[in-house]
Amino acid sequence: MPVPTVDWVGGLDGSFKVIDQTLLPTRYEIIDLDTVEQAWEAIRKLRVRGAPALGVAAGFSVVVGVRNWTGSDPEKFLAEVERVCLYIGTSRPTAVNLFWALDRMRRCAQIHRAQSVPAIKQALLDEAKLILAEDKDICRRLGAHAVKLIHDGAHILTHCNAGGLATADFGTALAGIFTAHEAGLSVHVYVDETRPLLQGSRLTAWELMNAGIETTLICDNMAGFVLSRGEVDLVITGADRIAANGDTANKIGTYGLAVLACHHRVPFYVAAPVSTFDLAIRSGAEIPIEQRAASEVTDLCGVRLAPEGVGVLNPAFDVTPHELITGIITELGVISHPDVATVSALLGKRS
Amino acid sequence: MPVPTVDWVGGLDGSFKVIDQTLLPTRYEIIDLDTVEQAWEAIRKLRVRGAPALGVAAGFSVVVGVRNWTGSDPEKFLAEVERVCLYIGTSRPTAVNLFWALDRMRRCAQIHRAQSVPAIKQALLDEAKLILAEDKDICRRLGAHAVKLIHDGAHILTHCNAGGLATADFGTALAGIFTAHEAGLSVHVYVDETRPLLQGSRLTAWELMNAGIETTLICDNMAGFVLSRGEVDLVITGADRIAANGDTANKIGTYGLAVLACHHRVPFYVAAPVSTFDLAIRSGAEIPIEQRAASEVTDLCGVRLAPEGVGVLNPAFDVTPHELITGIITELGVISHPDVATVSALLGKRS
Repeated sequence: MPVPTVDWVGGLDGSFKVIDQTLLPTRYEIIDLDTVEQAWEAIRKLRVRGAPALGVAAGFSVVVGVRNWTGSDPEKFLAEVERVCLYIGTSRPTAVNLFWALDRMRRCAQIHRAQSVPAIKQALLDEAKLILAEDKDICRRLGAHAVKLIHDGAHILTHCNAGGLATADFGTALAGIFTAHEAGLSVHVYVDETRPLLQGSRLTAWELMNAGIETTLICDNMAGFVLSRGEVDLVITGADRIAANGDTANKIGTYGLAVLACHHRVPFYVAAPVSTFDLAIRSGAEIPIEQRAASEVTDLCGVRLAPEGVGVLNPAFDVTPHELITGIITELGVISHPDVATVSALLGKRS
Repeated sequence: MPVPTVDWVGGLDGSFKVIDQTLLPTRYEIIDLDTVEQAWEAIRKLRVRGAPALGVAAGFSVVVGVRNWTGSDPEKFLAEVERVCLYIGTSRPTAVNLFWALDRMRRCAQIHRAQSVPAIKQALLDEAKLILAEDKDICRRLGAHAVKLIHDGAHILTHCNAGGLATADFGTALAGIFTAHEAGLSVHVYVDETRPLLQGSRLTAWELMNAGIETTLICDNMAGFVLSRGEVDLVITGADRIAANGDTANKIGTYGLAVLACHHRVPFYVAAPVSTFDLAIRSGAEIPIEQRAASEVTDLCGVRLAPEGVGVLNPAFDVTPHELITGIITELGVISHPDVATVSALLGKRS
């Protein structure tokens, strides 16, 4: 069972709880976020992270921010909701899911504006809990499709962290693995450490071990070795963004892993909710690649690893062409051999 | 011009100098090794490292160890040479080149045993200098063959450190790059950081920058991205051991890089002196893979990167099958499309 990354215990006077991910993997601590300032700081400092988890956290942050408002005028209360939403948005201004969830909370308040302030407060808590429940549901449904691809005794390779720590529940890339484990299947996971920020060693390895799943950590450059030995049955990664033709942007290194899997005829799967598809983007060529700070590569925990002044390339992600992807696992089912036709066929089920 | 990794300045009363590689890349310091204990410590603590450089260092360590011996009996002096050789051998008991060089020094003393002690001391210094000169000569000849593969404006990707810091001069993988740079060609090198020990970021990037060569550092998992952009003209790596059919053992990650280069139709070269071939080994399948300590992957400079108790795989190297190698660059020439026939054809030139 994965631990609850973001959770709410009780009613309006209850507790907003998150795992402090900055302490992992050496310490596992659940912290209470009692004030909106504490919630803001937790988002800002990446104590809670991962697109779906941030959406859930944004919802509960709004509740924490407005629950102690003492007035009784619904219009003034809505202004307060707006103020709190704007404030929370400043914590991570580029996190798309954060703003998506804040918009949901604003709309919820609008819809209930004819009601009393306590009733609107309750509606906001219900909405935040709904965001959480929807995320859990997506993870579970995705996991139910993914587990069909996993046999007892399977060896699975994954990259970065698309696990429970990035969502409110089973995660995406790890959803099938957790589902298989819950069903009593024996699974063994190779985890790429995922330079430069080491989400694999710090987060994925931790949450798999925490669930009692056999885990082997490797450096990213060891994946070829492990694949060449026939020790991997399938590869599953997450996705940041998927184009209409199935081309997938994900954490840097995913593309190289897909080429290696293809070379060894090992199935390569991407797991992501349908919200990850951006049909306005026709192919991966249209996805801009964010370059991140050189210091992520040259420094680690205050230790300098490379010469001063060295040129550095630090793309945040790369694009895996759909031809290299065996299937995209979503909560609606698996898109085998993704391309424009198979993607639109599955996404058509949404409507 | 690469810096002198291991050098001797002057006559018998001269100085044995090495770059303290443990201080790189943040500090460049040349240290004098005046006593055999200091030399032993420098080898043990990896202040000097790399197979060819260790051979040279072993020779000078023997000189430093025996030059102040005050007796005049050649037989007793030979016993002292033996004692010093045994002592130096304990610094890194698995370093093949160390023992190869110590044996050369022993034989040299034997050959001159009919001469006076001062004459034998001088012969030992001459022998150590000859090991250095031979290594330089191999690097230069290898570089002269490698440079023919490099055009003006070339972008080259390399992995780990097979540079001047591992040898007494131009290195192996970097020999062609230094030669091209000396010849006035413009070259740009992408350097894999090379987890877990980061020889790429710590050493290769440093020595390329020190020589004034344009250098871009990347994490190992970014090589696929760079190759996919058409930004690499050729890949050159070193080799630890090459089988009779051309299969090549080298630093972990080399194999994955070869697969990626092949996928992008980018030439993949191995550069190594002919002494790296082990014809008793028919193919890479016979090369045992050393597993190193888990802590190299889970810890860095005292910082814990992964959960306690996590399983770790840490193979020191991997084997690249000859089919993926465009050519092996040696001091005798380039073996194109290496296999049993082409390897034996070139190595036949030795005799």
